[in-house]
Amino acid sequence: MYYHRLKLAYKGAQYRGWQIQAEGTTVQGELNKALALVAQNSSVRSIGSGRTDAGVHALGQVVRVEIPLSIASAHLLKALNTHLPPDIRVVSAEESHADFHPTFQAISKTYSYFFQTSPYPSPFLGDTVAHFSFTFDAAKAREACVCFIGTHDFTNFHTEGTETATKVRTIESCALYAHEPGHSPLFHSAPLYEIRVTGNGFLKQMVRMMVGAIWSAGRGKINATHISEALGASEKIRVGAVAPPEGLYLMQVVYPQN
Amino acid sequence: MYYHRLKLAYKGAQYRGWQIQAEGTTVQGELNKALALVAQNSSVRSIGSGRTDAGVHALGQVVRVEIPLSIASAHLLKALNTHLPPDIRVVSAEESHADFHPTFQAISKTYSYFFQTSPYPSPFLGDTVAHFSFTFDAAKAREACVCFIGTHDFTNFHTEGTETATKVRTIESCALYAHEPGHSPLFHSAPLYEIRVTGNGFLKQMVRMMVGAIWSAGRGKINATHISEALGASEKIRVGAVAPPEGLYLMQVVYPQN
Repeated sequence: MYYHRLKLAYKGAQYRGWQIQAEGTTVQGELNKALALVAQNSSVRSIGSGRTDAGVHALGQVVRVEIPLSIASAHLLKALNTHLPPDIRVVSAEESHADFHPTFQAISKTYSYFFQTSPYPSPFLGDTVAHFSFTFDAAKAREACVCFIGTHDFTNFHTEGTETATKVRTIESCALYAHEPGHSPLFHSAPLYEIRVTGNGFLKQMVRMMVGAIWSAGRGKINATHISEALGASEKIRVGAVAPPEGLYLMQVVYPQN
Repeated sequence: MYYHRLKLAYKGAQYRGWQIQAEGTTVQGELNKALALVAQNSSVRSIGSGRTDAGVHALGQVVRVEIPLSIASAHLLKALNTHLPPDIRVVSAEESHADFHPTFQAISKTYSYFFQTSPYPSPFLGDTVAHFSFTFDAAKAREACVCFIGTHDFTNFHTEGTETATKVRTIESCALYAHEPGHSPLFHSAPLYEIRVTGNGFLKQMVRMMVGAIWSAGRGKINATHISEALGASEKIRVGAVAPPEGLYLMQVVYPQN
């Protein structure tokens, strides 16, 4: 068996998430199909750094692939991009080994959540940027972001589904950025907000629930202190909705030997 | 009858162009459906500043609509955006009159063509930005752009289909811009090129053939002088392919009382 480490970028709009399923088109399913074509239908395998939900995107999903064929990583990259649909791209490839496990060896992950608060959603960004039209106070949202930094129990910021020994995670950074409209009017004529979160691990829908809470604070529906209370609490405290998937991007995964 | 002047932005990917047709989904068809809903199924009519081809986008298509219902333009805008699909947006609306004709009274139009020359196409921009991977010399492409400025016979830069008295058109400006990757890595991590053309009128596929010629020059396949020769010639001179529709945007239409 030969091992390669790939970095994948994909637009999640047309997929039922990363993880291969019995039914429905998934990113991993498409990758495995392309791998099988390269490996002339012999058995292949892929392991990603983690699942992304239906509609969620990636700029830096890390995947270890396993094929019974000796091929240079650069050639594998080109061959896979020929077979993959245009909304999934292998952006880099290097040789790897059986000891590398993208899920368990990840030290940290960075997610970005992009959204706009313009009067009407851009007709061009519907499936890549979230949109709402209510008034939003960036200063209040920034106070909310700061609450998440540090080590907390995220029981109130996850959805049941994945069994994990502990709900405690450490958030290194959580910040709101406002990208002003660029020279090109095309992609955002209204300001584009980005909430960027780096942590040592994330529970199911955790980022989208953090974003939902930050939005609630930005809209003045809750105070930042509510978030701090929810982070310490063992009882259920509702702090906001689950933000929709189209704004979320897995940006980067860091490993010990990065 | 009541008249309104609308400005429309739309993503053309899902449509067979602006112009309503017997079969297939068109932007005008969707607009008329939305208008009919607002006007409670009485007869409605719309006239655009011009056709856009299948897959071509607009940020500033101007449309005069006609409905047998008295409604404030601001309310019409909101009502239409409720009924229109999310990839078609009315971005402004004002009262108009029967004497305003968006096609015949346009003084000038501006089109932009967006493209990237990165090693692989962005998975996020597939239907909104054109892509090629060959080497491209921006200085040579700029020389080609300049050739088009002025009054020329565009017989070699159009496709048969629309009858017009003359193939002579005046190009006010034609320039290449390079937008550097922004703070947000999302929309273009590679430089984004824009060819922006303003003229007093455009023949069928004229902008896309101008772009094709500019690309040929940028790739070193032809010299700028070839373009000047093709602009003066009565015989057929081939200067490049028709650039694909996904990069093209109708940006602005100017009228006398603008």
